[in-house]
Amino acid sequence: MTEPTTLSLDLGERSYDILVGKDLIRAAARYISPLLHQPRVIIVSDNNVAPVWLEPLTDSLDQAGIKSQAIILPAGEQSKNFTQLDTLVSEILGLGIERKTTLVALGGGVIGDITGFAAAITLRGIDFIQIPTSLLAQVDSSVGGKTGINTAHGKNLIGAFYQPRLVLADTDALGTLPRRQLLAGYAEVVKYGLIDDPDFFAWCENNAPALLDGDPDALGFAVHKSCQAKARIVSADERETGQRALLNLGHTFGHALEAEVGYGDKLLHGEAIGIGMVMAFELSNRIGLCDQGEVGRIRAHFEAVGLKTSLDGLADSSWSADQLISHMSKDKKVDAGSIAFILARGIGKSFVSREVSMADVKVTLERALDRF
Amino acid sequence: MTEPTTLSLDLGERSYDILVGKDLIRAAARYISPLLHQPRVIIVSDNNVAPVWLEPLTDSLDQAGIKSQAIILPAGEQSKNFTQLDTLVSEILGLGIERKTTLVALGGGVIGDITGFAAAITLRGIDFIQIPTSLLAQVDSSVGGKTGINTAHGKNLIGAFYQPRLVLADTDALGTLPRRQLLAGYAEVVKYGLIDDPDFFAWCENNAPALLDGDPDALGFAVHKSCQAKARIVSADERETGQRALLNLGHTFGHALEAEVGYGDKLLHGEAIGIGMVMAFELSNRIGLCDQGEVGRIRAHFEAVGLKTSLDGLADSSWSADQLISHMSKDKKVDAGSIAFILARGIGKSFVSREVSMADVKVTLERALDRF
Repeated sequence: MTEPTTLSLDLGERSYDILVGKDLIRAAARYISPLLHQPRVIIVSDNNVAPVWLEPLTDSLDQAGIKSQAIILPAGEQSKNFTQLDTLVSEILGLGIERKTTLVALGGGVIGDITGFAAAITLRGIDFIQIPTSLLAQVDSSVGGKTGINTAHGKNLIGAFYQPRLVLADTDALGTLPRRQLLAGYAEVVKYGLIDDPDFFAWCENNAPALLDGDPDALGFAVHKSCQAKARIVSADERETGQRALLNLGHTFGHALEAEVGYGDKLLHGEAIGIGMVMAFELSNRIGLCDQGEVGRIRAHFEAVGLKTSLDGLADSSWSADQLISHMSKDKKVDAGSIAFILARGIGKSFVSREVSMADVKVTLERALDRF
Repeated sequence: MTEPTTLSLDLGERSYDILVGKDLIRAAARYISPLLHQPRVIIVSDNNVAPVWLEPLTDSLDQAGIKSQAIILPAGEQSKNFTQLDTLVSEILGLGIERKTTLVALGGGVIGDITGFAAAITLRGIDFIQIPTSLLAQVDSSVGGKTGINTAHGKNLIGAFYQPRLVLADTDALGTLPRRQLLAGYAEVVKYGLIDDPDFFAWCENNAPALLDGDPDALGFAVHKSCQAKARIVSADERETGQRALLNLGHTFGHALEAEVGYGDKLLHGEAIGIGMVMAFELSNRIGLCDQGEVGRIRAHFEAVGLKTSLDGLADSSWSADQLISHMSKDKKVDAGSIAFILARGIGKSFVSREVSMADVKVTLERALDRF
């Protein structure tokens, strides 16, 4: 067994480790056991992940004398709502838990987000551990303590900042992912290059084909690098009063698309963010910040790997720029009516702006709606 | 206008003031305005309180140029559930709020608890202000940051530690309270005497008749004294890892009664806590900690003012000590199966114990069930 790489997210008494490597789920007890206050966990997973990864996890826990019980939710973004949260916390309480019981989120971003939120509010806060099994969850949502659910008014509008006690990112889990899921997660990988690491973007251009074919070394490097970038940004700004907003590159546009389509399989979160990042660079180009050549390079890379760059197949004649902008105005980052955008002066040169003219946003959206 | 007394709850960057006095709602803008990030609040109230106090509050805000919108919930403990929370946060989001919008809880304990919890989870946390209008809320629930809702599994099992930015305890609001509500709140007042202040218990014995007749000076003194005691205990132990548990005197028994009766008008929270405190002293006497004379003095005072001291009129032949104990085992304070009890060596000499034999608890409950 190869040793995992260990990153540390430094947040004072809420600090925790992020382990990236192979064979972590099968050896989970070794890492989890030292953190438990009692030899008992409740695992939350979904009906896609549980058939593959629940038994390896519970076997490891059993062997270490850790009692585990599992709650299995329906897979998919549709599960991230108030009704499912109510059901989940009721089931958790029904198992007769105590404040020292630990939850384990075994699954993708939806499972991590809803389980983390359930941990935040059950008995006013119990410990939880993230075992992300999708690429998106490993490189983004499992790290940094953003938990929550969606509402009819938008995505992640209800939730808490609540940090896990440990993140176990087992790259073996990525081997069983459908390519579409892997690709959607890859959008969040390449995001770190676009934010502030042009060398990593170049690495992505060179190594994406291997990564998307499931090459373990490429996956391990990308997950490690992504978690490192995220940990650095989050430790400097846990509650997103400043630079953490950079992680939302592509998200203002992306969330508007998801709200318009409805959360589900038609448009995966990572796919929306991929299109959103292209739009953010198009907007940056429109207002003279960024060369068209840079935008073209991003489009070319996305198209080469198969990431969506347009609304082709999504939008129809009922869509309008105004409607998409109205979705944006419900974003959490709105302040005194002004919407935060992540703009860029080039690849790896992004920044937060609240000075964007909505006329420019509207033209960017109209061009995107005309293009396909 | 007389100046309010100001207490400070010291919790570092989460510190806030508790103002106790007359005419605070009519002059609310004076105190609220300096804390707002934008000239806008959303007021949450109920259909008992709003007809009396909403207009004085909004008039004050209007005159200061602060825009306010109101959401009115049905009054009563039945509102403190998941469905009502879902409705409340949806309405809040439907008003198009931003992270800098402030919620104002105008009402009793239920309104404060659910509004505080909504503030904790909306956009992952927005500011809120407590304007408690019941005696119970003024002396207990509005101070200290415990927010939450009830579930079928028990009371306040879902929630967050989330501090308000200000507490405005206007004793004028107590003048319109039904006597039963005032008396239920009084149980939490006398609790502070029983915990660690025998002089205050003696003050209660002498001044309860005036207080319950609505004497403003007696009410003002009792609210100030109670908030002072609570602020002192909470500032030393915000998240209840130790001495804050003293505030639960009577609550382990009381919550079990509430769970058995069902949350509602049949047994108010304060009434349950009154009976629970008598039971806690009976238990303390049973295990040789406390003289029967002390228990008798408490019973005599409660009976003199009209607080329930027994299960008379509540329990029927379907009740059992085992069933009540099973409710206790779902309490948040359970640790490795052991239930925390607040015991006492006498009036004003209470302490936290995890060593209580359940056989003693059972006999205490059986005696209470036999007595009526």
